Amino acid sequence: MEIKVLNRKQLEEILEMPAVIEGVKGVYMAKANGDTAVWPLVEHHFPELNAVTDVRSGAVMGDINVHGLKMLNNYPGNTEKGLPAFSGMLMAFDSTNGMCLGIMDASYVTCMRTGAAGGISAAALSRKDAKTLMILGAGRQSIYQIGAALLLMPGIKRLVICDPFLPDGGKGYVEALPGNLKKQLNVERPDVEIVAEPNVEKAVGQADTVITITPSRKPAILREWIKPGTHFSCIGADMVGKEEIDPEIFRGARIFCDDIDQCLRVGECEIPAKTGVITRADVAGEIGDVLCGKIEGRTSDEQITIFDATGLAPLDLVTAKAAVQLAKEKGLGMTAEM
Amino acid sequence: MEIKVLNRKQLEEILEMPAVIEGVKGVYMAKANGDTAVWPLVEHHFPELNAVTDVRSGAVMGDINVHGLKMLNNYPGNTEKGLPAFSGMLMAFDSTNGMCLGIMDASYVTCMRTGAAGGISAAALSRKDAKTLMILGAGRQSIYQIGAALLLMPGIKRLVICDPFLPDGGKGYVEALPGNLKKQLNVERPDVEIVAEPNVEKAVGQADTVITITPSRKPAILREWIKPGTHFSCIGADMVGKEEIDPEIFRGARIFCDDIDQCLRVGECEIPAKTGVITRADVAGEIGDVLCGKIEGRTSDEQITIFDATGLAPLDLVTAKAAVQLAKEKGLGMTAEM
Repeated sequence: MEIKVLNRKQLEEILEMPAVIEGVKGVYMAKANGDTAVWPLVEHHFPELNAVTDVRSGAVMGDINVHGLKMLNNYPGNTEKGLPAFSGMLMAFDSTNGMCLGIMDASYVTCMRTGAAGGISAAALSRKDAKTLMILGAGRQSIYQIGAALLLMPGIKRLVICDPFLPDGGKGYVEALPGNLKKQLNVERPDVEIVAEPNVEKAVGQADTVITITPSRKPAILREWIKPGTHFSCIGADMVGKEEIDPEIFRGARIFCDDIDQCLRVGECEIPAKTGVITRADVAGEIGDVLCGKIEGRTSDEQITIFDATGLAPLDLVTAKAAVQLAKEKGLGMTAEM
Repeated sequence: MEIKVLNRKQLEEILEMPAVIEGVKGVYMAKANGDTAVWPLVEHHFPELNAVTDVRSGAVMGDINVHGLKMLNNYPGNTEKGLPAFSGMLMAFDSTNGMCLGIMDASYVTCMRTGAAGGISAAALSRKDAKTLMILGAGRQSIYQIGAALLLMPGIKRLVICDPFLPDGGKGYVEALPGNLKKQLNVERPDVEIVAEPNVEKAVGQADTVITITPSRKPAILREWIKPGTHFSCIGADMVGKEEIDPEIFRGARIFCDDIDQCLRVGECEIPAKTGVITRADVAGEIGDVLCGKIEGRTSDEQITIFDATGLAPLDLVTAKAAVQLAKEKGLGMTAEM
């Protein structure tokens, strides 16, 4: 049996955002049809090292047929040893026969599928005439969000980069972005004006679509700053206590999740739900239901829409399967005879 | 970061039973000191394929510092497709920094560490003057049990192979065994007489030490056949409903487990416990407690002793760590830059 063994550098060469987007869409729709499984999270803390390791596993059935897992290791103390603080490995198996398809670095797969999730949800739930996209948080994950959104939303003509924590207000990021998008993701959108606006209130006041991708633990965007019809894709919050937007924004909004239970537990929905701003009944449904046409997405131009993403192992697995397929087609990556 | 990627054939070259035995002993003793963790089992059935996949994960702390997992896939329908029905992959990480050490086929690691478990327990719990070793079950796992036991028990002078299901009564197995032991495990014991005895009653009547390694679901060895002082290492039963020896043998015996909770749930202890022959209080302790000297093993020459092994992910992980170390020393296996 031959398997592909792919490191991050090879995955950067191999994976293409359009293929990842197709895979992630496919998983969301498979989930709406009951064809995905997320298995119990295994999590372990090494208290004396302040480290944590976790195993996220699951499967996509239907026509996709992949199962597997990723093991992620978070060792904050590694930085001073010159090692990555965050690393992980992923194994994917063909669910029709249990044979291993490939083993790979988990970090780039996670970046790409998370970008695809932001872009897909923004394209599906924003106003049809959305022109201004705001990205809150200009960290390492942001380029994947921007790349996927610009691929999927040809109507966007203005991109506002907002990160109050950048010392230069985001100027350097904005200058480098077109080149980075081209080089890293093969995305070219010369028709889009890109600006930095470190003042969150000013940035959000002009946005039709907002993607939040920060590690924030308190709301960065307040209800009174937003204009009617804004869409929010809240990607950053994926653990208890994290939140990026004012819970009041949820009041009366049309709310979607990648996985309702998980979002109410650890996503952007967690705090609005815990503080009674929303109940489970206020969640309209999952993004897969919208993509399948089972439920309506946005129902009016004035509506506030929110998508809450917490990440699902099936998204990693379908992306890994695409990586193996593309690596074979392109003759890239290592091949191991197992 | 460089990792080792090892397939079964390479592992057969790389792994040495003495090193595996040292690793398994180390894990048992680490467990007695509270330095191992077994994380929740993840198990999923694909009903339309009659297939099952599971993830077993855990860690060994103390001086060993390895964590990781194996994902096993059991697809009985594969046989008619010319694929292995049973396959799996293992990932091991350095717990001091979370970096991946290696990725490997899980099947050979499982065979070797299971053999070591049988040998270690037989050596620790048999009478000091034990001369005759009986192996119940001459399937593919048996050679690892025999190899480890013969390495650890120089007093054994007679080996009785008992498998009532072999059409030739075991003659072929016995003839090939010295060559296979030498070739596969580098074990030479010309001082040991090897015989086949397909009659279980006759075989067990002469045994001082019995290792059972069958997939049996009903007792193959009855209480009235055994002589005082016999030791049993029951290795085969690792799922609900499996049993190899008469529950009555447990009555009055000194009983040890690899993990008490797991053995009472899915091991040879399961049925005696469920039928009231024993209670948890009748289990003397875990094998690691004996190896550490925390509790006594056998306390008289007439005593029946039983060791129940159900397998622990830390055993796989320490064996994987040894494989990576030996592969580096010997310059064998693939190296992947991750």
